[in-house]
Amino acid sequence: MSLDRAEPNYFGAGPALLPTSVLQQAAKDLINYNGLGLGAGEISHRSSDATKIINDTKQHLTELLSIPDTHEVFFLQGGGTTGFSSIATNLTAAFVKKTGKAGKAGYIIDGTWSKKSYEEAVRLGVETYTVIDAKKEDGKFGSIPDVEKWNIPSDLSETSYVYFCDNETVNGVEFTEFPFEKFPGVEIVADMSSNFLSKEIDVSKYGVIMAGAQKNVGLAGLSIYIIKKSLLEQASDDELKALNLPLSPIAFHYPTVVKNNSAYNTIPIFTLHIIDLVLKHLLELGGLVAQEKLNKEKASKLYNILDQYPTVYNLPVDKKYRSNMNVVFTIKDGSLDSEFLKAATEKTLSGLKGHRSVGGMRASLYNAVSLNSVNLLVDFIKEFGEAHK
Amino acid sequence: MSLDRAEPNYFGAGPALLPTSVLQQAAKDLINYNGLGLGAGEISHRSSDATKIINDTKQHLTELLSIPDTHEVFFLQGGGTTGFSSIATNLTAAFVKKTGKAGKAGYIIDGTWSKKSYEEAVRLGVETYTVIDAKKEDGKFGSIPDVEKWNIPSDLSETSYVYFCDNETVNGVEFTEFPFEKFPGVEIVADMSSNFLSKEIDVSKYGVIMAGAQKNVGLAGLSIYIIKKSLLEQASDDELKALNLPLSPIAFHYPTVVKNNSAYNTIPIFTLHIIDLVLKHLLELGGLVAQEKLNKEKASKLYNILDQYPTVYNLPVDKKYRSNMNVVFTIKDGSLDSEFLKAATEKTLSGLKGHRSVGGMRASLYNAVSLNSVNLLVDFIKEFGEAHK
Repeated sequence: MSLDRAEPNYFGAGPALLPTSVLQQAAKDLINYNGLGLGAGEISHRSSDATKIINDTKQHLTELLSIPDTHEVFFLQGGGTTGFSSIATNLTAAFVKKTGKAGKAGYIIDGTWSKKSYEEAVRLGVETYTVIDAKKEDGKFGSIPDVEKWNIPSDLSETSYVYFCDNETVNGVEFTEFPFEKFPGVEIVADMSSNFLSKEIDVSKYGVIMAGAQKNVGLAGLSIYIIKKSLLEQASDDELKALNLPLSPIAFHYPTVVKNNSAYNTIPIFTLHIIDLVLKHLLELGGLVAQEKLNKEKASKLYNILDQYPTVYNLPVDKKYRSNMNVVFTIKDGSLDSEFLKAATEKTLSGLKGHRSVGGMRASLYNAVSLNSVNLLVDFIKEFGEAHK
Repeated sequence: MSLDRAEPNYFGAGPALLPTSVLQQAAKDLINYNGLGLGAGEISHRSSDATKIINDTKQHLTELLSIPDTHEVFFLQGGGTTGFSSIATNLTAAFVKKTGKAGKAGYIIDGTWSKKSYEEAVRLGVETYTVIDAKKEDGKFGSIPDVEKWNIPSDLSETSYVYFCDNETVNGVEFTEFPFEKFPGVEIVADMSSNFLSKEIDVSKYGVIMAGAQKNVGLAGLSIYIIKKSLLEQASDDELKALNLPLSPIAFHYPTVVKNNSAYNTIPIFTLHIIDLVLKHLLELGGLVAQEKLNKEKASKLYNILDQYPTVYNLPVDKKYRSNMNVVFTIKDGSLDSEFLKAATEKTLSGLKGHRSVGGMRASLYNAVSLNSVNLLVDFIKEFGEAHK
């Protein structure tokens, strides 16, 4: 039975490409894991084998990201959307514990996903303010206002946390550097679902990092959380009810999850095992230093060629905030969209259609997308550009 | 690369055994699904291929369970624990829509899981009452009081829903028949996580059926919901807030999930695909009629042999409510526990240790556990019984 495949040239935005070698190992482990005679998805989530998968995954993440002792790693089912609610409730509960007050959460809205996260916090009854709302200012997402224009309260003592999305998958907007220094004493929460493990970061600066697995790290179904341990001190349910604040469902109550080493409820062990295989693969390839270098090279090649045909391609994102993960562009003559996609498919290049909400094209260059795939795409974009300039 | 394995004789309570042929197909599909050149876990959850997996799975469930047009199927991430909260919030919101009032939810507590579900509803601020609390009455779980002794309000118009767990995995207690006639006009909610698709049921009688996949149906990570369509009419967030009632996080808001055909957030498509493979496998084997017959035969063989050695084995569950899925027993001489487990392992019989909360032994006889495995277990139990009687 063959487990081979031709290396895909796939640029889908997620669920996304995974390394073929990882999937091949996972396929075998689905049937017989570690010589047990059982697949990794069939063992108890409280067995020693499952516990080892949980602990190994935490350890490999700690190595890759140099996670300091001040922070803890855990896993939750769901992706970003599940995270939007659990962040709002848990971070509020931590702030109540610390101050006795509900506080207000500051949201930086620079794209579709941070907007959804903000809306969920509001919906659940968490008091919020917007630090920026990029669409309101520019009429569209595609840039981030200069930090001098941000709405930052002079007194930050009432701010429970500040939330931002480090890479906006739909809009192709990525932070190069976050201005942590503008929020002294405030817990910074980052959604890194679509650029997690694509570059080096300084974990110590974050209160919480949340990342859905289905871009750079694995299958859909699990999210990775890295949390400052002090944020696991939370107000009790009764204290929250007294303040008319929403509770986390118990399966998403961070202190309970951490206390049970991510196995309070049944963690999908096979899905987690794939994450661990991806992490080991990244460590073998030289860790995040190597990955960041490669990702910058891939993105730079693609943006360069697109920039060379300004009459053919439109790049809607401010150069300063162009994402290294999701390269968004449109064909200026929109009637050529289907010709572009059809010709790309003939060159084995797939997954290039933009998000339904914004249209156009999007090439996602996650870790598993090879330089070779990007070179083929660059050649095609050049050829198409020459033909239509 | 071999995808073969010896047929396991595994009696774990979950995550549990899956048919080897299903896992072999899934292993191939993890790498190259449907000739796409991409694995089933790498495609967009909104692609036509993913939509087909969602729709096929719904269709196969509808066939297996003869689900009527009055009901709708959807999928949520998480398992039972996630369901405990989402049921409490969604069913309450449906009751408010219908009556303008919050109502009270009746809980039937006959084991560890229904107790947890009750506790979560209370914790979230849903008003409840207990129809029965079997442990309070008997000091332990292991039976279900006669229906004449149930605490059923004479006026049921304030009851938002009545909840029960059809099979208590930890305690080995299973309903043979639920007394629907005692709750006229009330929505009945059943957790069938550990006996879903093990027998025929009449779906029309239920408001909601919830089943985590990781016992009879697939890997951990997804739950199947079958809901009466009228329960998708729910009060607005503002109406719920005005009544001081908890909201569902948006990813678990049933109307939103159904409106988006279970893809509001990123559904784990590979995990769902395995569910669909299991469903097709069950249909090929003759559907639930065949499965129920086989499951009854397996359980009956095992209970019979255990009953034959009353001085060696103790069966704590009331005969009327013995589960066909989870056969719970203890060795009367507790000092023989490790000898029993060691000798079983030598006969390739594994996964027999009872739940950490109750101890003893538990043999789970889910659909994928073969008659051959049960025969081997029966032989071993007889041999051990003879040696120690």
